[in-house]
Amino acid sequence: MSLNTFGHLFRVTTWGESHGPALGATVDGCPPGVALEPAMIQQWLDRRKPGQNKYTTQRREADEVRILSGVYEGQTTGTPIQLMIENTDQRSKDYGDIAQKFRPGHADITYFQKYGLRDPRGGGRSSARETAARVAAGGVAREVLKALMPGVIITGYMVQMGTLVADRDRFDLGEVDKNPFWCPDAAAAAIWAESLDRLRKEGNSVGAVIEVTASGVPAGLGAPIYGKLDTDLAAAMMSINAVKGVEIGAGMAAATLTGTENADEIFMGNDGKPRFSSNHAGGILGGISSGQDVVVRFAVKPTSSILSPRRTITVAGEEAEIITKGRHDPCVGIRAVPVGEAMMACVLLDHLLLHRGQVGGGGGRIGQP
Amino acid sequence: MSLNTFGHLFRVTTWGESHGPALGATVDGCPPGVALEPAMIQQWLDRRKPGQNKYTTQRREADEVRILSGVYEGQTTGTPIQLMIENTDQRSKDYGDIAQKFRPGHADITYFQKYGLRDPRGGGRSSARETAARVAAGGVAREVLKALMPGVIITGYMVQMGTLVADRDRFDLGEVDKNPFWCPDAAAAAIWAESLDRLRKEGNSVGAVIEVTASGVPAGLGAPIYGKLDTDLAAAMMSINAVKGVEIGAGMAAATLTGTENADEIFMGNDGKPRFSSNHAGGILGGISSGQDVVVRFAVKPTSSILSPRRTITVAGEEAEIITKGRHDPCVGIRAVPVGEAMMACVLLDHLLLHRGQVGGGGGRIGQP
Amino acid sequence: MSLNTFGHLFRVTTWGESHGPALGATVDGCPPGVALEPAMIQQWLDRRKPGQNKYTTQRREADEVRILSGVYEGQTTGTPIQLMIENTDQRSKDYGDIAQKFRPGHADITYFQKYGLRDPRGGGRSSARETAARVAAGGVAREVLKALMPGVIITGYMVQMGTLVADRDRFDLGEVDKNPFWCPDAAAAAIWAESLDRLRKEGNSVGAVIEVTASGVPAGLGAPIYGKLDTDLAAAMMSINAVKGVEIGAGMAAATLTGTENADEIFMGNDGKPRFSSNHAGGILGGISSGQDVVVRFAVKPTSSILSPRRTITVAGEEAEIITKGRHDPCVGIRAVPVGEAMMACVLLDHLLLHRGQVGGGGGRIGQP
Amino acid sequence: MSLNTFGHLFRVTTWGESHGPALGATVDGCPPGVALEPAMIQQWLDRRKPGQNKYTTQRREADEVRILSGVYEGQTTGTPIQLMIENTDQRSKDYGDIAQKFRPGHADITYFQKYGLRDPRGGGRSSARETAARVAAGGVAREVLKALMPGVIITGYMVQMGTLVADRDRFDLGEVDKNPFWCPDAAAAAIWAESLDRLRKEGNSVGAVIEVTASGVPAGLGAPIYGKLDTDLAAAMMSINAVKGVEIGAGMAAATLTGTENADEIFMGNDGKPRFSSNHAGGILGGISSGQDVVVRFAVKPTSSILSPRRTITVAGEEAEIITKGRHDPCVGIRAVPVGEAMMACVLLDHLLLHRGQVGGGGGRIGQP
Repeated sequence: MSLNTFGHLFRVTTWGESHGPALGATVDGCPPGVALEPAMIQQWLDRRKPGQNKYTTQRREADEVRILSGVYEGQTTGTPIQLMIENTDQRSKDYGDIAQKFRPGHADITYFQKYGLRDPRGGGRSSARETAARVAAGGVAREVLKALMPGVIITGYMVQMGTLVADRDRFDLGEVDKNPFWCPDAAAAAIWAESLDRLRKEGNSVGAVIEVTASGVPAGLGAPIYGKLDTDLAAAMMSINAVKGVEIGAGMAAATLTGTENADEIFMGNDGKPRFSSNHAGGILGGISSGQDVVVRFAVKPTSSILSPRRTITVAGEEAEIITKGRHDPCVGIRAVPVGEAMMACVLLDHLLLHRGQVGGGGGRIGQP
Repeated sequence: MSLNTFGHLFRVTTWGESHGPALGATVDGCPPGVALEPAMIQQWLDRRKPGQNKYTTQRREADEVRILSGVYEGQTTGTPIQLMIENTDQRSKDYGDIAQKFRPGHADITYFQKYGLRDPRGGGRSSARETAARVAAGGVAREVLKALMPGVIITGYMVQMGTLVADRDRFDLGEVDKNPFWCPDAAAAAIWAESLDRLRKEGNSVGAVIEVTASGVPAGLGAPIYGKLDTDLAAAMMSINAVKGVEIGAGMAAATLTGTENADEIFMGNDGKPRFSSNHAGGILGGISSGQDVVVRFAVKPTSSILSPRRTITVAGEEAEIITKGRHDPCVGIRAVPVGEAMMACVLLDHLLLHRGQVGGGGGRIGQP
Repeated sequence: MSLNTFGHLFRVTTWGESHGPALGATVDGCPPGVALEPAMIQQWLDRRKPGQNKYTTQRREADEVRILSGVYEGQTTGTPIQLMIENTDQRSKDYGDIAQKFRPGHADITYFQKYGLRDPRGGGRSSARETAARVAAGGVAREVLKALMPGVIITGYMVQMGTLVADRDRFDLGEVDKNPFWCPDAAAAAIWAESLDRLRKEGNSVGAVIEVTASGVPAGLGAPIYGKLDTDLAAAMMSINAVKGVEIGAGMAAATLTGTENADEIFMGNDGKPRFSSNHAGGILGGISSGQDVVVRFAVKPTSSILSPRRTITVAGEEAEIITKGRHDPCVGIRAVPVGEAMMACVLLDHLLLHRGQVGGGGGRIGQP
Repeated sequence: MSLNTFGHLFRVTTWGESHGPALGATVDGCPPGVALEPAMIQQWLDRRKPGQNKYTTQRREADEVRILSGVYEGQTTGTPIQLMIENTDQRSKDYGDIAQKFRPGHADITYFQKYGLRDPRGGGRSSARETAARVAAGGVAREVLKALMPGVIITGYMVQMGTLVADRDRFDLGEVDKNPFWCPDAAAAAIWAESLDRLRKEGNSVGAVIEVTASGVPAGLGAPIYGKLDTDLAAAMMSINAVKGVEIGAGMAAATLTGTENADEIFMGNDGKPRFSSNHAGGILGGISSGQDVVVRFAVKPTSSILSPRRTITVAGEEAEIITKGRHDPCVGIRAVPVGEAMMACVLLDHLLLHRGQVGGGGGRIGQP
């Protein structure tokens, strides 16, 4: 990852500001000959799109993606794919106050400290609107994965909102699309709805934990020591706006385990592949996928743009109070679900290409002479 | 981060296996004219060195570093610095069993699945011995930081062992060097010692949480969107052996906060710099340092090489039981403390160089016309 | 350089096909606070624009650049700058024949061999139209150079067309903008005009040599061993369509010199800087600028799309004859002049940023205690 | 290429100074399971080794390579391979004068200007001794090529010394190993010997042109636009010490051709692969290999360390005269032959890995439905 590009071989460079004319992603290194139509990408953007229910910003964006290059007669050509999304709803008057004042917990102050100037319209480059470009790129990655690793299924969902934790015993992935929280626990979703209504009315916001899993990932993906699969997933997720923690498998709780508890014991499956007694490793050992489900979680802090007054300072160095009006998500974690899925898709594809670059079709098969 | 290299401008490439003739780090992009002697690096290696107390592996390694290039008459020349550590204690007979069996929770199986072969002697490349190279590179980074950002102080310590959490009210950084756990809570260290003695005798191991802080970091470091300071720290820490989770500031707990709680309110300090009411952000907003302490934590899983028998399979695909003899750390998290510090030093220096590359000496100063 | 990106810190990613909806460049790593308006970029695009005289393709392209991101209120913000040029004249019917046949000397065949499919409209990604994106990015680089290294002057011109070599004794840089060949030798330009008229009427084309110089470049730019200034210039120029050779200073003729002839002897200038008796080195020693003029030359082969019939094969493997109709430059080298200048600007700026990243404001000054 | 690393996937990082304790190359991204023994690398180092005849420096170096990592039981493991060569003959007293004076035409002055200090012993990092590390890395690349692309044959030879050009009509590659110039024209070699004897006695030196060809390269290698095969070859060759020009195929002479002359006409070969009437393209079209021989040439300037007195300045800024004593090659181009071969091997392998990463085993086959 380097400045505005991520990926080793499947390389995504995003560009654009919240209230500029457009934003997008340049996808480089995509394998050729993969069927790609805008609708295949649009479906994922539609999931992330603002204004879909009362828990997301009421900004109205069509988020319509255009493919400007890299595709000919419905197939990728191996040349860079430019995905552009025009910004249509740019009510920048809503943001007047934040041009002079720094929102606590927001990148306003650090962008100014770093660059000496910033585009204050909607947070400029630091806006979560940048994640639309990731979702678009992820849409491309998914189509390529479908062609090259057809068994892979990526699923993201919210497992915690504030202090309210979903109950894994009630998890039903069929529920994820049925509630505004992408929550696999329908009962939790109902409680979260009530809680978020209250917070929103109070002009407050709240954090969340998102989990993204990938099943069907073949063993052998990951490039130790500094391009480990978990390293790249950690970077990918931590780079999403407002993320403050990333976990693989048992995550931070791995610290609480003993060696006997943590060891995912290994058996031979009927399909000649290893089978594991548990998945504390989150499908990754030594930075390389083991064939188990890849499991990553990340924590999203509460939206910093809130209606509750907070103490801050101005660019001129004067102390002040700030209330952020405008159309903000009370729980920005909700819309991070499709973003996390997109990052998972990009990282997995990137590592598939890296792996076949270095190792080709080979690798070791257990029980083969 | 790409395969065995990390860093954008201050680039570290590590090499070497646990039981090969030597291991090391090639440090590229180091600023010239910085005083550097082997002893400056050796002091950090000595902290990480095995066999220092009964809680770390009894393998006897001098871990003596040699500088093979990039330094002339005691000063860095701007050319690559090769740091080599010869392996002296290579009792590979201890490892016979693991050549054919995969240790549960270890990279044995995935290295085989990826590469089709592996160096089984002491875990080969996947051994935590690789971290000696990081500590050496970190020693170089620290000397450069001292020259370029003299106010920076990096401190690592263990805050949790298994389920036993150190008490922040009792934290005294003066204690860190006085117990074998690098624990700032002397009372906790005493309890941990008892607990670890018991686990070690049982042939078991346990996980840990390490915290690394950096104070005196100037505002403005970090390269959004995909080279954010927290992104790079997350990658750096996640790339350390056995790490399963990384947190910045409030970390995973950020999910539990409301927007009003999470907002680190801003005031003007007497020194003309912003002052904050709290540090949930861990010193990083929008991927850029704010001038507050940079705070990162990571969880290390328990050592997977344990004396307790576990179920596994062999390379030939037969089910088996494994007991890992040899000289293993019962809590590998202990020796991860100097490693985490080294990664922090490398990442901070790298971002300082990146920042002055793109922005030069500039940036924005609050309250300046 | 990696796939569609070039540059270390000032990174340019180009995208787009000859007859797609648009093409462009994503410029990442640009220093903030530099004044930038579309007109500053447009002026260079206008120099490269097709259809300006009878020696360049009669395709009608406005080549109007739009800045979609990275600029706020007329200043760069340090975030990625997206430069987009829409394609307006896409008479793809002209290209019917080349969809099935491979033009000898053209990338048609190798794109097919590599990717298994290709966009045949106007050469797709392999078209020289891609160089418009480079010129746009070079326009940004020039503005930043103006701000950071104000003394730098970049000048490109044609020194040879076919076997007709311009006479250095007659060089007058004031002539460069006055003839369609960017030739500093007015007499040569007149002869070239006659020669090219004849070739064009014959349905033929011809090669050329371009020279690009940069004066005012400070000593110290270049990152040995693999990021040398001449290495990066060679890569930059060789990456331009149809380039087959690159020379620095004396170039290939350096082989003919003896050590005494080649040595640019050194004296002290009145300004305290070294002065040289000659410039066989082309301003670069050991991959680092010396303060002399940086001089690079490159050879452009003749346009492969010609009206003269040539033997070739079809995608189906049948032998055939091909005549390329359409609107092609009889000497594509002419329009390579602004492209070479753009690449020089990008490489110099990139190395300025790299240098200040690693070395800061320092370096060695001769005669200073 | 970035600082001291080259390659995209097969990445080589070199380190070490002429008179430091050792130098070497860290080879990262090497495919696993390839047979590798030191002797396979040593054979190429022995070709480059100094002191083999009176036309190369009389410095006595064993140039014995050690493999410190990445190989287990005679096979590459996919982890970084450290190749180390210890310096044994370090008669640095020979270099006393050049610590204070800058050799004209040498990197002495620019290293000082860039870094503010330099290792003057034998040219430090700027010494051609660094190329030993390239040759070692190239030795690894050759073994991997042998395993993955067995038909590839790489051959380097000298085609010009000073103004004396070898005659292509007399070329016999069987002669290359039989004369000290690696010259395929035995008659030319005899004349060169006489000429170089004279120059050496006069305390002078001379330049040369080297050609490196690779036959058996499959079509499809190269990563347009900025990772073209010719772009990377140009960078690779230009990065070699003293190189001032690089040509692909017709090279600079491509400028003199018309379109009809330059077009390598295409026919179908009996093996179902395209056949070409000529090879002006040097086997590369649009930056991608076509299946023809890849042909690259580069010019090496005369050694700048000569016994003939030249005017120069000192570090203190005083004008002076310099005579470089010591053991220098009168024609450094001679020893550049194995270096050019090594760079060709590394670039081809790197592009093979890149290609199979992005495209896999696919690509287009002419005449296949």
